[in-house]
Amino acid sequence: MFQKCLENVQSTTPLVHNITNYVTVNDVANAILACGGSPIMSDEAEDVEDITSICGGLNINIGTLNHNTIPSMFLAGKKANELGHIVLLDPVGAGASALRTKTAVDLMEKVKLDVIRGNISEIKTLAIGSGSTRGVDADVADSVTEDNLDEAVAFVKAFAAKTGSIIAITGAIDLVADADRCFVIRNGRPEMGRITGTGCQLSGIMTAYLVANPDQKPEAAAAAVCLMGYSGEIGWQYKKPEEGNSSYRNHIIDAIYNMSGELLEKGAKYEIR
Amino acid sequence: MFQKCLENVQSTTPLVHNITNYVTVNDVANAILACGGSPIMSDEAEDVEDITSICGGLNINIGTLNHNTIPSMFLAGKKANELGHIVLLDPVGAGASALRTKTAVDLMEKVKLDVIRGNISEIKTLAIGSGSTRGVDADVADSVTEDNLDEAVAFVKAFAAKTGSIIAITGAIDLVADADRCFVIRNGRPEMGRITGTGCQLSGIMTAYLVANPDQKPEAAAAAVCLMGYSGEIGWQYKKPEEGNSSYRNHIIDAIYNMSGELLEKGAKYEIR
Amino acid sequence: MFQKCLENVQSTTPLVHNITNYVTVNDVANAILACGGSPIMSDEAEDVEDITSICGGLNINIGTLNHNTIPSMFLAGKKANELGHIVLLDPVGAGASALRTKTAVDLMEKVKLDVIRGNISEIKTLAIGSGSTRGVDADVADSVTEDNLDEAVAFVKAFAAKTGSIIAITGAIDLVADADRCFVIRNGRPEMGRITGTGCQLSGIMTAYLVANPDQKPEAAAAAVCLMGYSGEIGWQYKKPEEGNSSYRNHIIDAIYNMSGELLEKGAKYEIR
Repeated sequence: MFQKCLENVQSTTPLVHNITNYVTVNDVANAILACGGSPIMSDEAEDVEDITSICGGLNINIGTLNHNTIPSMFLAGKKANELGHIVLLDPVGAGASALRTKTAVDLMEKVKLDVIRGNISEIKTLAIGSGSTRGVDADVADSVTEDNLDEAVAFVKAFAAKTGSIIAITGAIDLVADADRCFVIRNGRPEMGRITGTGCQLSGIMTAYLVANPDQKPEAAAAAVCLMGYSGEIGWQYKKPEEGNSSYRNHIIDAIYNMSGELLEKGAKYEIR
Repeated sequence: MFQKCLENVQSTTPLVHNITNYVTVNDVANAILACGGSPIMSDEAEDVEDITSICGGLNINIGTLNHNTIPSMFLAGKKANELGHIVLLDPVGAGASALRTKTAVDLMEKVKLDVIRGNISEIKTLAIGSGSTRGVDADVADSVTEDNLDEAVAFVKAFAAKTGSIIAITGAIDLVADADRCFVIRNGRPEMGRITGTGCQLSGIMTAYLVANPDQKPEAAAAAVCLMGYSGEIGWQYKKPEEGNSSYRNHIIDAIYNMSGELLEKGAKYEIR
Repeated sequence: MFQKCLENVQSTTPLVHNITNYVTVNDVANAILACGGSPIMSDEAEDVEDITSICGGLNINIGTLNHNTIPSMFLAGKKANELGHIVLLDPVGAGASALRTKTAVDLMEKVKLDVIRGNISEIKTLAIGSGSTRGVDADVADSVTEDNLDEAVAFVKAFAAKTGSIIAITGAIDLVADADRCFVIRNGRPEMGRITGTGCQLSGIMTAYLVANPDQKPEAAAAAVCLMGYSGEIGWQYKKPEEGNSSYRNHIIDAIYNMSGELLEKGAKYEIR
């Protein structure tokens, strides 16, 4: 299943419009290229509708949002909706500031999102959130563990049902769910958290995966998570003892670049609940 | 000839002011440092005239243009013109949005450009363009191949004559032309297209090359293209099978760093038409 | 002494808010992660007070300042002061433009700075500066050498006394001083100057070091300088002949990642004057 998702990306070179933060943007671009997609970055209000129109998907990441780029997120999102394009939201730092929380919640309300991808704290913030998203039970701990997995799975499915979006929560255990099914994924390594932007890279890649697999979006989102995590495992094998997070970053993107559908199918560690 | 161009860069450390996109800016800075130049980035209207004044050249790249940085491009361009500095335009995405096309065309009209460097689609857009640049015959295919090379060479010379700028079109075959002569360059590797920003890096390096070689600008522009492409060939030799685009990016910049004039002279693959 | 400083960082994961330039921001984030801290970037006026409130320190770097981010620097600085957080200023390019000089001088006047870290030219500009900082004797050459070391030490101590900030001047010889003592540090390699952003990385790391060592700030600042320089020495050992500045950058961050307190204690080369 994941093999086909990957091959669809590599054979169609999906074009992804990214409105993303300037911290990790270079790695996002190289990660999208590595997985077989093609990235374009544009965040000026006067530019984003044209740019998103020629793409297949839109990746909105609020990591370094500002008063110029926030309106661009809404303009691009609405245009992408009109055109039936894939839209993903990465609510970086939701919960850490009022502006981030408000922007993410407003985007959820005004833009139809195919996927929301974040860590458990960000997703919980959106679930508790405000306005129309309030009321979803977010009584879940701040990390997904084997002990609270049942509860976390129920939470992510409920939030997916509430929002109509695929919800992807990444951490030690990753969850990708729609209202009915939840992929519980156990790829990856804890050391990936010592590299800036592995989550941002995943959001870019996931957008490309959904563009290339419009008929199986949850599978595509889960495949992207497995790709990222398994590339983290492969990259680790090539990390020498004297190397650290900077080289490990390169090894991971390199592993994404060299991943085949067959290899991903074998390396993906998941169950469906 | 190219040996001397390179040595002039390494012996004079040309200072390059970059108004460039935030996607590839770090690699642009390191590529300029690698080739022997010194980069400064500044894109605030109140800052750019001072900064460009202390430099020898200005590299304008519209990859993530916005309403704050567009006026800065014109201010810096005019100041650089007043001071007789080198100015290069990299019209990233011209043709992909109205704002990008308009900005590039306006820059061509209001700033004297020593070089315009882009891919064939971008340069064709500018040639068909609008306003005073309209009318140049841009009936050329969307990639330069051995089959349409005569036509492409004629096109690029005509556009150089029309604009008074050196025109550099990079792709599988690279063309660098003024009105009279066209360097046809066959360095590089196709895998360079899977790395974000090799074109942006080249624009930064090319600006440094022209600053250090004001009396032979077309040769300097061609030398920069050969340096980038040949470094892509050398970098590929050091790429291990398990490595991908992220490590390849490092190998290329490393090869630029280690290039000698003698080596470049030997490795450059070009003819003049 | 430096061993304890490093261990305090690694055991407490200090959170650093960075308002920094988009050129080197990715390396700054990875360098802070490598040393054991945790970076957050935010430069929107409406966002910075919330973000800085949840951090322990604020790193202000004016490398690509603009009219949107300058007010954010003041807002974040004042909020950090209110909360008793560490604040560091990296006055990139002070002296190179009127806007940079003015912004840095204004920040010195309106924000209580725990550390000002720059190269000798930037620090001299601030010392000669304008307004209340004028009058400090800045009659010191443009690089710190063994020949002018006595004079440079006197200058940096005087400027520290005048401002009430720890002053860190980095170059071939590094100086870290308060009014009474000056650490004279001889770690590092000249090739680090061929990589963009080693100074920016140091500013991010130094902020983390002060957050984790509030009772010995000068020692913490000096430890960060030794960490960066010694990592440059270790990284150089792993640099292969065919590698250049791009790979060297990775080796240095990797060395920061792998540094132990014991190793730093042994490798630090300094005297106190």
